[in-house]
Amino acid sequence: MRDEQLLELLTERPGEYISGEEISRRLSVSRTAVWKGINRLKEQGYEFDSVTRRGYRIVRLPDRFDEVSLRLQLGKLTSWGQPLHLLDTIGSTQDLARELAEKGAPEGTLVIAEQQTAGRGRQGRVFHSPAGRGVWMTLVLRPQQPLQYTSQLTLLAAVAICRALRDVSGLDIGIKWPNDLLIGNRKVCGILVESAAEDGHVRYALGGFGIDVNVALEDLPEEVRPLATSLRIERGEPVDRTAVVAAILSELETLYHLYNREGFAPIAALWEASALAIGKVVTVKTLQHTMTGIARGLGENGELLLEQPDGSITPVYSGEVGF
Amino acid sequence: MRDEQLLELLTERPGEYISGEEISRRLSVSRTAVWKGINRLKEQGYEFDSVTRRGYRIVRLPDRFDEVSLRLQLGKLTSWGQPLHLLDTIGSTQDLARELAEKGAPEGTLVIAEQQTAGRGRQGRVFHSPAGRGVWMTLVLRPQQPLQYTSQLTLLAAVAICRALRDVSGLDIGIKWPNDLLIGNRKVCGILVESAAEDGHVRYALGGFGIDVNVALEDLPEEVRPLATSLRIERGEPVDRTAVVAAILSELETLYHLYNREGFAPIAALWEASALAIGKVVTVKTLQHTMTGIARGLGENGELLLEQPDGSITPVYSGEVGF
Repeated sequence: MRDEQLLELLTERPGEYISGEEISRRLSVSRTAVWKGINRLKEQGYEFDSVTRRGYRIVRLPDRFDEVSLRLQLGKLTSWGQPLHLLDTIGSTQDLARELAEKGAPEGTLVIAEQQTAGRGRQGRVFHSPAGRGVWMTLVLRPQQPLQYTSQLTLLAAVAICRALRDVSGLDIGIKWPNDLLIGNRKVCGILVESAAEDGHVRYALGGFGIDVNVALEDLPEEVRPLATSLRIERGEPVDRTAVVAAILSELETLYHLYNREGFAPIAALWEASALAIGKVVTVKTLQHTMTGIARGLGENGELLLEQPDGSITPVYSGEVGF
Repeated sequence: MRDEQLLELLTERPGEYISGEEISRRLSVSRTAVWKGINRLKEQGYEFDSVTRRGYRIVRLPDRFDEVSLRLQLGKLTSWGQPLHLLDTIGSTQDLARELAEKGAPEGTLVIAEQQTAGRGRQGRVFHSPAGRGVWMTLVLRPQQPLQYTSQLTLLAAVAICRALRDVSGLDIGIKWPNDLLIGNRKVCGILVESAAEDGHVRYALGGFGIDVNVALEDLPEEVRPLATSLRIERGEPVDRTAVVAAILSELETLYHLYNREGFAPIAALWEASALAIGKVVTVKTLQHTMTGIARGLGENGELLLEQPDGSITPVYSGEVGF
């Protein structure tokens, strides 16, 4: 049975349920094959209402970016997103962006994919990127700042995306240092800024952004569900992914220009205003050890300033925060 | 005519000259073909004495690293150089090292090639790496310092290699900021430190080192000859490349451990003690503009501190120094 045959059947009486038995009989396949076919369609972004004894009903077709309207919306709000590489399925937008950057792609080059099959998160973790449900994208930057300021870009990205998602969704979203975006204590966005440097000079930086826009919990593996959410889950209705992309790029570009003109101080202030744990006791797990202290804010390079029980301040450059 | 036939002829009467005419006649090829063959052998590292009307005489066979004695000498002086990848011809040691680092190669992994066909210098420049004449190598590092300190590694590499080459050759070698090693005003070594970071964390750094050990000026393209030299040219005799590799790795490891224990201050002091232009008027060409001032030393991130005519200090993070 081809997926096309199954789809034809499922769409011939719009709005009505069609039973697994009928599908099985008419396509001359087993009930198990029907069930597998339905799951394949779900992976492609089809959504079903399924009711015992009545069968399946398509309630939502896969969401696809429309390239023309994406270009139009981007063009209204930002000079970034050009060139635009819009792909259906890719291993990782980060890897394609790296190839493009190595070949000289300019600042503002954007890679978006409907689906990543090998999306990467921080520290080599798997990042789940189901088809049509999120914004999985990488932006190429060519920062002029010397190498030692590059980690500030991670904070800049976090605050820009936090502000953009609040604007688009109206939801209360906060930043967990350095760059996780949370609603409640569930993650709605992952940020991975990779950079390539030569001596003291940054050749390029890749801002990898994965936003769970319309992801349903069942799209995700069971083990990550307790920690994840999406704009759709929180709002109770789907959110326009094109608007999300345009809002993010626009805010990123605005803050990036502010940063280039006035340095990190205004970015740090905006970051702290959106941060979740400032003034609270947090635990930080670094590669070497685990520390507890009060998060006091950002140092001038974007490090987290942790107040120890004796009142001294320890700067933390990388690690996982828990609170 | 195969190179092997030419070599057979050239080595049949050791110490004696053999004329181009004889070679041409006995191999039944043109005089131009003979001349081209001799040039191919030169590129492989053969050296000739050629005298008008008498012909060619091999005076030096290609120098090859002996892997066993290289491993032995490294083993005596340093824990680095393991795993060792010793290759004959490669595009760029930096590119292979990057592949190995991406696959998890440990700190101390070393890639050495007799010859690079696409050696890279700073800012995408071509780096010439003729067969058997130099040390063309890349060392994989996994620094624990946060990203903003990575450019200090470039300075650390410069001072370590400067000290090692002085030890091995007895020559007076100085550093031009940030990391060119000069004898007189001619360059004897190029250093390219590339790094890959994820947020505030350095995933790996690649120390690419190209040392003109036994390079003759005729090995180099005409346009770079006025600016280049080699240990052999300055000493008037060949220098053992294996000793050069071992001395460099040993000094690098020593200074790296010092740096990890005590920070950048002792490295900066050693660097300044070997620097060529401290206290002198220099011109610095950056991507944006050209500045003139007195080089006062290194700032705490390795930037060059340039005293302006009005007495103010401008930090320079990347650029080309002239004096």
